[in-house]
Amino acid sequence: MKMFVSDNNSGAHPKILEAIYNCNYGHEPSYGNDKYSEKAMELFKKLFEKDVDVYFVTSGTAANIIGLTGLLQPFEGVVCADTAHINTDECGALERFGGNKILYVPNRNGKIYPEDIKNFLSSRGDEHQVQPRVISISQITEHGTIYTIEEIKALADFAHENHMLLHIDGARIANGVVALNSSFKEMITDTGVDLLSFGGTKNGMIMGEAIVSFNKEISKNFKYIRKQGMQLISKMRFVSAQFIPYLEEEIWRENATNSNNMAQYLKDELIKISNIKIINELIGNILFVQFPKETRKALEGEFSSYEIDRENNIIRFVTSFDTTKEDVNSFVKRIKNII
Amino acid sequence: MKMFVSDNNSGAHPKILEAIYNCNYGHEPSYGNDKYSEKAMELFKKLFEKDVDVYFVTSGTAANIIGLTGLLQPFEGVVCADTAHINTDECGALERFGGNKILYVPNRNGKIYPEDIKNFLSSRGDEHQVQPRVISISQITEHGTIYTIEEIKALADFAHENHMLLHIDGARIANGVVALNSSFKEMITDTGVDLLSFGGTKNGMIMGEAIVSFNKEISKNFKYIRKQGMQLISKMRFVSAQFIPYLEEEIWRENATNSNNMAQYLKDELIKISNIKIINELIGNILFVQFPKETRKALEGEFSSYEIDRENNIIRFVTSFDTTKEDVNSFVKRIKNII
Amino acid sequence: MKMFVSDNNSGAHPKILEAIYNCNYGHEPSYGNDKYSEKAMELFKKLFEKDVDVYFVTSGTAANIIGLTGLLQPFEGVVCADTAHINTDECGALERFGGNKILYVPNRNGKIYPEDIKNFLSSRGDEHQVQPRVISISQITEHGTIYTIEEIKALADFAHENHMLLHIDGARIANGVVALNSSFKEMITDTGVDLLSFGGTKNGMIMGEAIVSFNKEISKNFKYIRKQGMQLISKMRFVSAQFIPYLEEEIWRENATNSNNMAQYLKDELIKISNIKIINELIGNILFVQFPKETRKALEGEFSSYEIDRENNIIRFVTSFDTTKEDVNSFVKRIKNII
Amino acid sequence: MKMFVSDNNSGAHPKILEAIYNCNYGHEPSYGNDKYSEKAMELFKKLFEKDVDVYFVTSGTAANIIGLTGLLQPFEGVVCADTAHINTDECGALERFGGNKILYVPNRNGKIYPEDIKNFLSSRGDEHQVQPRVISISQITEHGTIYTIEEIKALADFAHENHMLLHIDGARIANGVVALNSSFKEMITDTGVDLLSFGGTKNGMIMGEAIVSFNKEISKNFKYIRKQGMQLISKMRFVSAQFIPYLEEEIWRENATNSNNMAQYLKDELIKISNIKIINELIGNILFVQFPKETRKALEGEFSSYEIDRENNIIRFVTSFDTTKEDVNSFVKRIKNII
Repeated sequence: MKMFVSDNNSGAHPKILEAIYNCNYGHEPSYGNDKYSEKAMELFKKLFEKDVDVYFVTSGTAANIIGLTGLLQPFEGVVCADTAHINTDECGALERFGGNKILYVPNRNGKIYPEDIKNFLSSRGDEHQVQPRVISISQITEHGTIYTIEEIKALADFAHENHMLLHIDGARIANGVVALNSSFKEMITDTGVDLLSFGGTKNGMIMGEAIVSFNKEISKNFKYIRKQGMQLISKMRFVSAQFIPYLEEEIWRENATNSNNMAQYLKDELIKISNIKIINELIGNILFVQFPKETRKALEGEFSSYEIDRENNIIRFVTSFDTTKEDVNSFVKRIKNII
Repeated sequence: MKMFVSDNNSGAHPKILEAIYNCNYGHEPSYGNDKYSEKAMELFKKLFEKDVDVYFVTSGTAANIIGLTGLLQPFEGVVCADTAHINTDECGALERFGGNKILYVPNRNGKIYPEDIKNFLSSRGDEHQVQPRVISISQITEHGTIYTIEEIKALADFAHENHMLLHIDGARIANGVVALNSSFKEMITDTGVDLLSFGGTKNGMIMGEAIVSFNKEISKNFKYIRKQGMQLISKMRFVSAQFIPYLEEEIWRENATNSNNMAQYLKDELIKISNIKIINELIGNILFVQFPKETRKALEGEFSSYEIDRENNIIRFVTSFDTTKEDVNSFVKRIKNII
Repeated sequence: MKMFVSDNNSGAHPKILEAIYNCNYGHEPSYGNDKYSEKAMELFKKLFEKDVDVYFVTSGTAANIIGLTGLLQPFEGVVCADTAHINTDECGALERFGGNKILYVPNRNGKIYPEDIKNFLSSRGDEHQVQPRVISISQITEHGTIYTIEEIKALADFAHENHMLLHIDGARIANGVVALNSSFKEMITDTGVDLLSFGGTKNGMIMGEAIVSFNKEISKNFKYIRKQGMQLISKMRFVSAQFIPYLEEEIWRENATNSNNMAQYLKDELIKISNIKIINELIGNILFVQFPKETRKALEGEFSSYEIDRENNIIRFVTSFDTTKEDVNSFVKRIKNII
Repeated sequence: MKMFVSDNNSGAHPKILEAIYNCNYGHEPSYGNDKYSEKAMELFKKLFEKDVDVYFVTSGTAANIIGLTGLLQPFEGVVCADTAHINTDECGALERFGGNKILYVPNRNGKIYPEDIKNFLSSRGDEHQVQPRVISISQITEHGTIYTIEEIKALADFAHENHMLLHIDGARIANGVVALNSSFKEMITDTGVDLLSFGGTKNGMIMGEAIVSFNKEISKNFKYIRKQGMQLISKMRFVSAQFIPYLEEEIWRENATNSNNMAQYLKDELIKISNIKIINELIGNILFVQFPKETRKALEGEFSSYEIDRENNIIRFVTSFDTTKEDVNSFVKRIKNII
């Protein structure tokens, strides 16, 4: 039975596997100089309607860290929400690889706003303090919430007015674009985002993320940082080829639409159960559900691998590209049985 | 036409692709807690006939750096040949990620010996100097030469007598084992190697290396280092599953045998051409060939992507798991034509 | 006229200069192997009534960073108050030199308590999260408040029960000991502190801090870390010799007593002015004073180099070892004049 | 009795102590914003006849590392002689603090030349290799040899023609200037040196080095790097004030002249002893002397703290600013007695 622990638990979309299979023919130049990487890069330029710089890597943490440290001098820092993946779930990779400080602030439903960052501006020019240089947000957030186009633009504008850059951790960026019925151009290119960690793995690839830079000046040294960051894969085609159907055939949209829809369906089914509260209203494919304490305790044994906030009796459920209505139905039935 | 630039230019063995395809069924716990990773680890224990610790990563550089920095305190260093991959081809990843110094010494046909390391022992306890802690060698070496079992054992013994550890960069370890008609147990476990970067990518996998530790005490923190090193892949099964046929069906042996044989065949064909000299006599799948200066110049345009030592008129040729006699024949013919 | 900006603005006590002058005779072994360093170390053992390990350095930041990174593996972090000097005023030195993450929590009057740290314990063993390893507090705190002996002991106990260590940033430790009418033994040795940054500079030395370790096992590699941290001074006697009168003749007590008393006197004089509020009640030599908004604005021009919290209309005043009643009187008069 | 182990064993010149004493009057802004630092900076501009940027630090290692890492991106490296202090005697500080690689080459009498660096140029633009960015030489060298003005200029020209910068580790720069009867302007400013670690400690200061940048663009972020490198001393006047007489009254020349002369005198006296060979002919204040094996062995017990190359029977002798003819005479007599 499929679970709702994480979209990382799912496998790959058949077309992704097919792409891997199809790119296996013959010899190809290594380290990204192959024709599949070239084509995938072209597709990214089309997606964003901009001449972006693209660097493929193998994990979301790598995309975040290689990209962010590529933007930062060692005495510069990243401002983000306390709940940001780079702050809580990357084992201090940014601090270790870049030597950079993360300036985290209390989140508001997983998000931050320009006023949360203003405090750091007073340190500008003061050698005793880390210099704020990048704002990093997650779309969709770790709380399952979603930044609106306007909110992203406001952060980008604020960043640029204050000698800062805006980065998006887009591990689930496709879910965000689909949820807002937007486009990558509208949400990313047009708002003024400087750097995007474009996630593929959680949305039906076997492994593959892309660091997408919207300003060639800031990414001019990224090739060295990626190699030094141990992420220049020799047979790169096996990563980049996955992005070809993902972008060309809009697997990203197909997959994200399904996982978002299944989250909505799960939500609709769950709220039929009395005393259950959905914490995050506008959703992608993540649902935070608050249960009565006793119910949470009853569910706990079964859901031991789930992310559980015991203090507030909240459990996280995540749908995947391959989640079906049947999966949701059995799951809800199981929850009802436990209760 | 297949080239002889690098074994990185080849694709994957059909059984490897099959393994990827077959592990795609259903949901699996992420981050290496899946059944494929578990099985692959068991196979490693069988291969080495020892209860080894195994950590899967996605590149050879990652295997080297995660493993080595896991062994080192920041004031400790690695002694290796000047030609070592960690010294010349990893863009300073060890220095950046670990902050560690590489103490490189002049190689002798790509190799180093205990007497090359003795000089560093005088720094033991002197706080002004980096403390030598790990000896790192490559098997087969970057010069295409091979350490004998006795040479490896001598280095391991020397290391252990002097509070040091022995690491092998085994990007082409299978070619070494096959070339010496040895076994992993005999070459690695029994000689006393402490840590091995076990390469799969160059020998017919799409991407996949394993950090293999022969001493659980030294690797007890590796799980943190791997995550911090951006190498904890979420859908780990797609890496680990490749190792199952690779080890269980001895794809490693099949592939390395072919590439070694084809290198031998290439050598046999090349020496028929007058004035050509093979630089490295005992070979795995790498051949360094010295041409007369004029010949080298003539070949240069055609072989611009090859590793060429212009000063000494030496060109490197590498065979792959999928190299055929026909590939060699056409290649030699092409060389003859150019000459 | 002497100012109240910072105790860093003062010079050195005459006996300290005398010690520098007197140690200048003849040649001495360098790098701390001199007789003055040896004697100073002995005096530290007497002060703490324990066989402590002592490492002299030249700045408070260096004492904190060399000491803390000496305790930490790169995937381990330091828990401290958001206001901690290591978090806000060391330009990210810990992150850069150690690669370690600082896990900062909201302070309560400049302090933290065991319950503030409990949250981090759930990450123990989870490779996705930085492992909490050291609790770092400042005595006296950056808010001018003081931990009681019991509070320090509670933190040390909590640390040791949870595989953690307790570090004190003692840039103004003498002021703390004097303020509580305690002793270094009672406050540090007996409470179970593991590591102390023992400050001398702010309390009448020209420059000199000591990293004091209460557990030789945790500091066994500190000599390498100090050298690698660029803090092994060649003519070390000129740092260590200052500690001889400082400890032997209790200059630390004389100086801290005066600066504490002058802070008390300043407080007594200031509260005579109407509408002024002292923010931190139990004081060492730091006073945070809240003024009516208009008053703060009036003072601002004159006190531009002072630490001013404009939002809350609070100004920081710091007394020094050489502050006199006349200095306070003129200063208060000046404030009255401005108002 | 004064020894000849190292110039680090000497104390300070009386005028230096006087400067420390005299700057102790009253309160001064901290962290280098004091009037002594300002004046010292002006004196540096006069000395070099250029509007240089100056950053005071407390050790030679700090001057080297803060300066060099300030010039380097993490994927860039420093080319130097294998014998360079940054390579052998700083416990890997550059690697740890900067994450940068040191690309060391075999020295020729302690020196390197443009042809030694050419090899690294082929890595330009190749992301697999550390990018060569800075050439670092020591004047006078660790072998006691001295670069001529022309040699320095040739290295600076080579650097600038190849997108590189030239750094000089000038721990004993005054001895070099005096030995060549040159000036700081001629040797440093006019040759095109980009960055100088200007040593004061070994030449009669208690502690004090200056990072001198000849190009404000390359040093624009040095203030942050120095703070992050734990070298922004709070009571900076006690370092900078020493440079005032050192430069204004040419204590540097007086001291270096004496130590150079005493090295010459020591050499003259030693060569009267039969079978002794002076290894480094053009000297500053360092003498490498080769003895017959038996003599070396006889001397060894007495000179255990000296730098001894047992393999080649060479002992290093260093004179100081305070070495007298009587010191030399007694020392030579002692050597004769042992022999």
